[in-house]
Amino acid sequence: MRESGRRAFLTGGMSLVACAVLAAPRPLAAQTAPSSAGPADPRLVEDLVAANRILVDQGVLDGYGHVSVRHDRDPSRYLMSRSIAPELVSVADIMEYDLDSNPVDARGRTTYLERFIHGEIYKVRPDVTAVVHSHSPSVIPFGVTGVALRPLYHMSAFLGGGVPVFDIRAASGQMTDMLVRNPALGHALAQALGAHAVALMRGHGNVVVGVSVPQVVFRGVYTEVNARLQAQSIALSGNVTYLDAEEAKRAEASIAGTLGRPWELWKRKAMAK
Amino acid sequence: MRESGRRAFLTGGMSLVACAVLAAPRPLAAQTAPSSAGPADPRLVEDLVAANRILVDQGVLDGYGHVSVRHDRDPSRYLMSRSIAPELVSVADIMEYDLDSNPVDARGRTTYLERFIHGEIYKVRPDVTAVVHSHSPSVIPFGVTGVALRPLYHMSAFLGGGVPVFDIRAASGQMTDMLVRNPALGHALAQALGAHAVALMRGHGNVVVGVSVPQVVFRGVYTEVNARLQAQSIALSGNVTYLDAEEAKRAEASIAGTLGRPWELWKRKAMAK
Amino acid sequence: MRESGRRAFLTGGMSLVACAVLAAPRPLAAQTAPSSAGPADPRLVEDLVAANRILVDQGVLDGYGHVSVRHDRDPSRYLMSRSIAPELVSVADIMEYDLDSNPVDARGRTTYLERFIHGEIYKVRPDVTAVVHSHSPSVIPFGVTGVALRPLYHMSAFLGGGVPVFDIRAASGQMTDMLVRNPALGHALAQALGAHAVALMRGHGNVVVGVSVPQVVFRGVYTEVNARLQAQSIALSGNVTYLDAEEAKRAEASIAGTLGRPWELWKRKAMAK
Amino acid sequence: MRESGRRAFLTGGMSLVACAVLAAPRPLAAQTAPSSAGPADPRLVEDLVAANRILVDQGVLDGYGHVSVRHDRDPSRYLMSRSIAPELVSVADIMEYDLDSNPVDARGRTTYLERFIHGEIYKVRPDVTAVVHSHSPSVIPFGVTGVALRPLYHMSAFLGGGVPVFDIRAASGQMTDMLVRNPALGHALAQALGAHAVALMRGHGNVVVGVSVPQVVFRGVYTEVNARLQAQSIALSGNVTYLDAEEAKRAEASIAGTLGRPWELWKRKAMAK
Repeated sequence: MRESGRRAFLTGGMSLVACAVLAAPRPLAAQTAPSSAGPADPRLVEDLVAANRILVDQGVLDGYGHVSVRHDRDPSRYLMSRSIAPELVSVADIMEYDLDSNPVDARGRTTYLERFIHGEIYKVRPDVTAVVHSHSPSVIPFGVTGVALRPLYHMSAFLGGGVPVFDIRAASGQMTDMLVRNPALGHALAQALGAHAVALMRGHGNVVVGVSVPQVVFRGVYTEVNARLQAQSIALSGNVTYLDAEEAKRAEASIAGTLGRPWELWKRKAMAK
Repeated sequence: MRESGRRAFLTGGMSLVACAVLAAPRPLAAQTAPSSAGPADPRLVEDLVAANRILVDQGVLDGYGHVSVRHDRDPSRYLMSRSIAPELVSVADIMEYDLDSNPVDARGRTTYLERFIHGEIYKVRPDVTAVVHSHSPSVIPFGVTGVALRPLYHMSAFLGGGVPVFDIRAASGQMTDMLVRNPALGHALAQALGAHAVALMRGHGNVVVGVSVPQVVFRGVYTEVNARLQAQSIALSGNVTYLDAEEAKRAEASIAGTLGRPWELWKRKAMAK
Repeated sequence: MRESGRRAFLTGGMSLVACAVLAAPRPLAAQTAPSSAGPADPRLVEDLVAANRILVDQGVLDGYGHVSVRHDRDPSRYLMSRSIAPELVSVADIMEYDLDSNPVDARGRTTYLERFIHGEIYKVRPDVTAVVHSHSPSVIPFGVTGVALRPLYHMSAFLGGGVPVFDIRAASGQMTDMLVRNPALGHALAQALGAHAVALMRGHGNVVVGVSVPQVVFRGVYTEVNARLQAQSIALSGNVTYLDAEEAKRAEASIAGTLGRPWELWKRKAMAK
Repeated sequence: MRESGRRAFLTGGMSLVACAVLAAPRPLAAQTAPSSAGPADPRLVEDLVAANRILVDQGVLDGYGHVSVRHDRDPSRYLMSRSIAPELVSVADIMEYDLDSNPVDARGRTTYLERFIHGEIYKVRPDVTAVVHSHSPSVIPFGVTGVALRPLYHMSAFLGGGVPVFDIRAASGQMTDMLVRNPALGHALAQALGAHAVALMRGHGNVVVGVSVPQVVFRGVYTEVNARLQAQSIALSGNVTYLDAEEAKRAEASIAGTLGRPWELWKRKAMAK
């Protein structure tokens, strides 16, 4: 899985998802702990730890938020930290979950309340290998104003397909505590995300997906950067030129081949702290 | 007191206050030093020191501002640093005060001019265990423009009950030096705060209260963050969706159970400096 | 001089200046080096070094700008670094100047091109003990738009007397290189400053004066902070409540007594780097 | 070349370029590696390494962007890092290129995809000794809104001649991936730059040129600063006073003599990390 992730990361493409196949009614969560897919590739776990710290370093995560990656041996399992601040995550904190977001081997460790974001997206997006949920500060205003987040420079071309906003109140038909705290809400968020790279969550943050850990980190960072630059551009003038759809498609493909450059830098800096 | 603070911190509720009981005319400050409630729980003092440094780290306090906590052995005493910059506060600087804000054992140490903010709030808010007074930069514009500070994302749901603005000129009926320098002004501020979590102080800063040190720190940080995000949202669009009152109430209760996560992170970082 | 500066710093007052006395035509700069007033108080020199570094730390100075202090033994001499970036200034870089801004003992050291800002202000403002010239970023927009910088919170109450804008083009009646590069331009700037604490320089930065090194540093920092907050407030609403003139006067006097608190913090941090 | 660069750097002038001479059709890139001009001055290479790190330190470069300098022994060769993040560049990463941007001695090292920006500018601008390509964040909004970047303070006087915007779509007459990935696009960008110091690239960033490494770094930094201040000024008022053309010309000449001051500071700080 990691190798195929690497391959997709190098070619940059993102295939459309046949959502319907996986959108069938889900069984109730298992009453007993699911079985393990076995130990994950240590390099994948290391990258997952780095991703948590990088996204803090880059101002995307604060004391909250989480990053997951699909298990390299079994696409029906994913890896994510126990419930601690992302800046403090280390290898020993990484836990394995099934796609209903049940921990394989909790051993008393607490889990993120919103882990269903990850499992439900992995269910309906077989092309996705990594997921970030964040309170990325510059995207919050876009989630609460109806102003569409759109790519205005090449680094954020992956936003070119559009950025849907998930309103948990509309999706659930009721007042909630704003948290994606069960499989149904996770599924609704995954449906809102559709085949896109990013979905905003009204009054909350965003969710970002990718075909590899480096790609999802890159997307998390440049979603934040684009939001900041777009707000500044709108303040400067009512007449902003965004990337054309064709430009965005081509730029995304080209930039995909360069992700290793910031990734190596970010990882070195974040892990040296 | 600390234990009950912990309990309230975990349940997250904030009971309404029967202000009238304690709003009776206050006697003049004692001419002799009040008696001590005895040594406070060392963990409470350590948390109070951490709170000072965390709030600097998070951009809420600068060279000014102060944090207090109610004494764990006696609700009629509170603890706060002598008059130094919050970043420099250590255990040896913590002093004990009665609710008229007289120091129990000054030993030549200077006290904050505005200590009355703390004592007068503790008098009328028996539910409050900790108080922060800050010049939190992003809230200043809300204090001077009449634009109401309102929660637009779940982390700031505690603002959902409303954020009153205390105008010292209106409250005192005269021109002042803007400082809450006596019991009467402190009492007026406490009245303006009412049962809320936060009150803005026009041309000055804010005051934040909570049921524990971690909660008041959390609230101080996310009041600042919400103010920043709200200003950005208003700049982006005239049409901002705030949390619904019911969403705010539910989110506040849920988020209350997660405060330990950022608190551990913030404390570790602030104390390592 | 230092002691009287200290005293004024504690009382916080700023007397009006009888400008006319000193505004008579000035002689040409001496052809020979002026005599020295002798070694300055080492604590004053240390504070001057600290002031340079603090103002960098606080975002007021960058690679440019300078700070001076009047000599404690002779009011007709002042001390300022040779021409290097303020962050690099150490005791050995401090030079003595007469009020025509001639160095007493250059020994091949280069001088700031705009040193006349300092000398000419000391001539017409006998109450001034310290001067900062900066490119304080947040004040630049106020210097080029005609929007008056006004105090909106108590820390910046010293701006209450008004903040004039010096336009070098209008003052000199011609196109210049924007630099206060001779005594005549320095005198014109001093005239524009008048009895105020701060003057903005159009398309350039500002000049800040005080009765002591700690006070001028405090004023430099809180001029920058006020400019940032005022811009944010104006963006939020067209209806900003500024400090009333009487509030500003009272707040300035009260705050003056607290300057030691941030000064000790800032100095400790800046000198530890 | 370096010495003449130094001289121009001290006088600050920028001669106009006879573009036509060099704008004739270019031959295809050599099929064999070009010959080397021999080892460059080690101090020039050291400055180039420093420039990369300084521009990261100052917020102009992030994980992307590149800096080049013309070879001191041969104006038809230039030096630039292999394809890594600028913050990681060291002496061993510096490669030599001919003006068609073919590496002299690749030895398996990868090259920046957009190296043609550099070679094509060196071809048509014999006065240029150093080139920066960046995603300088504050300039992005100016590149996508049609709001002209103009100098509003003396440090940015070098923008006084105007700042053209290069739109790769208009220049190439088609949809691209936004990257200057071949000689023809590099040449088009060089034509858009003309005799100016800076050109913006729509939806991408900017290119900055200078007569020396310190000058191009200075210009990169103060282009970013001016963009930030101009956006703030426009937000504050519709009525911004920019530098008069004559002021800009004079200020640019005067400031040119002071570049060593920030350069020494920036270099010391960046290389100490």
